[in-house]
Amino acid sequence: MKLIRFGHPGQEKPGVLIDDKRYDVSGFIPDFNETFFETDGLTKLKELVEEHGTNLPLVDNHERLSSPVARPSKLLCIGLNYADHAKETGAPMPPEPVLFMKSTTAIVGPYDDVVIPKSSVKTDWEVELAVVIGKKASYVDEAEAAGCIAGYLLHNDVSEREFQLERNGTWDKGKGCDTFAPLGPFMATPDEIAEIDNLRLWLTVNGKSMQDGTTANLIFKIPFLISYVSQFMTLLPGDIISTGTPAGVGLGFNPPVYLKPGDVVELGIDGLGTQKQTVKAYQV
Amino acid sequence: MKLIRFGHPGQEKPGVLIDDKRYDVSGFIPDFNETFFETDGLTKLKELVEEHGTNLPLVDNHERLSSPVARPSKLLCIGLNYADHAKETGAPMPPEPVLFMKSTTAIVGPYDDVVIPKSSVKTDWEVELAVVIGKKASYVDEAEAAGCIAGYLLHNDVSEREFQLERNGTWDKGKGCDTFAPLGPFMATPDEIAEIDNLRLWLTVNGKSMQDGTTANLIFKIPFLISYVSQFMTLLPGDIISTGTPAGVGLGFNPPVYLKPGDVVELGIDGLGTQKQTVKAYQV
Repeated sequence: MKLIRFGHPGQEKPGVLIDDKRYDVSGFIPDFNETFFETDGLTKLKELVEEHGTNLPLVDNHERLSSPVARPSKLLCIGLNYADHAKETGAPMPPEPVLFMKSTTAIVGPYDDVVIPKSSVKTDWEVELAVVIGKKASYVDEAEAAGCIAGYLLHNDVSEREFQLERNGTWDKGKGCDTFAPLGPFMATPDEIAEIDNLRLWLTVNGKSMQDGTTANLIFKIPFLISYVSQFMTLLPGDIISTGTPAGVGLGFNPPVYLKPGDVVELGIDGLGTQKQTVKAYQV
Repeated sequence: MKLIRFGHPGQEKPGVLIDDKRYDVSGFIPDFNETFFETDGLTKLKELVEEHGTNLPLVDNHERLSSPVARPSKLLCIGLNYADHAKETGAPMPPEPVLFMKSTTAIVGPYDDVVIPKSSVKTDWEVELAVVIGKKASYVDEAEAAGCIAGYLLHNDVSEREFQLERNGTWDKGKGCDTFAPLGPFMATPDEIAEIDNLRLWLTVNGKSMQDGTTANLIFKIPFLISYVSQFMTLLPGDIISTGTPAGVGLGFNPPVYLKPGDVVELGIDGLGTQKQTVKAYQV
């Protein structure tokens, strides 16, 4: 299944994609949130789709798409998880995963604008594969981890490099700015993806290719990451772990290249759809 | 006013403290959460208490107290914000605030057990004054910041130093472990505290004094901190900013001293009550 959420910010409704058409399931399901995943909502949604299918109410194609899942308790990210990206940032190969958190107020839809924060001069892009957790996970081992996955989605881990690296703190300052986490357009359940470790992921700025990688190059694979993170904190249903970005971010160019108002960022992952954001300056 | 929440984990109800007695307001207010603060719930609560006062239903003193506010979208922390603590950790004086995030799954009540994570050998304590945000705040200046405060509460920013400092990542790994954020026993509204910048805060382990400081020594004061954080991300009603800890953490001793099962940690801040946690080993 492919789960979507649509509607104005703060008023999103849940839906599904069937053969690229959008259907509304809000008559049956309040939202794709922690309660939904915790109470085996995916099984109920599957039954619903099997029963009603294309008889579900159609959603207009002009409706805004939002993040396919509701605001999670945690949006966790793995840093430097592609060897080529670690190299371009000048960081050593990580002996174990780098973990950081992104403020959930950063979450927006896949086609929403990305807003450059006030006084930012180093706003950068990062195409990433993100995993949605389906059930509570604490100290799970790698073998159990696959059973904790609700699905996958596309994430642009937008990052302000000065805030992240030069402003005296952990990375969190430069990762959680508003609009810095476009998610979607849909969450694919695991059965939709044949080979999660062999997906192309790419990103362009104004049509120019910047990132073009493959999840085959992930240093730490998804089951390991879920197990790893669950040693440090309990993962809740609906929580998101973003798995890192391949080479080609603005910071890695010589000289670095950063986003400016008017730029158009497009990105995609095989089987997980595409995003397109226009970059805007901050305005009151 | 002094806000409390009581009951079993996951089933907490809101209440108030009046002359040290606990009263149930769940008949009128669903919870002290984002919606409550966003919709001027504090004003409604004040009217409720003025109208009903000690005629509200009494809460049994044996009921568990939980965090006085519901799970926020963000639990943010300021690091190294007391000069004496920065010195004891060997860190330089910060030119601007150090910011990090704590997983909200770490939140527990003020008298709940603190659980040492599996394979942890460096679990440490940190008494802190935390601020609860009362309304949405983005790019607020210092003058506006006071108007964004819903109240104050006591926080033990429990920290695993090996996870935080030696495990290849940002601090987040060592800060967000389950039970690492005891909050409460109550949230005091600003009118309850005469001088927020002149409160004694202290912590003992097994009755031995470890931390004994004053908020007069905060390097960056609360209005500045709120303004500062709001430059990097939007603060939502109910979000929490913890303002840092004074000297006396286990990491600062020579050799360092860390918590072990059976230890009893007590802490307090003038006007914000006291906490008491028993330290337990992790058990499945």
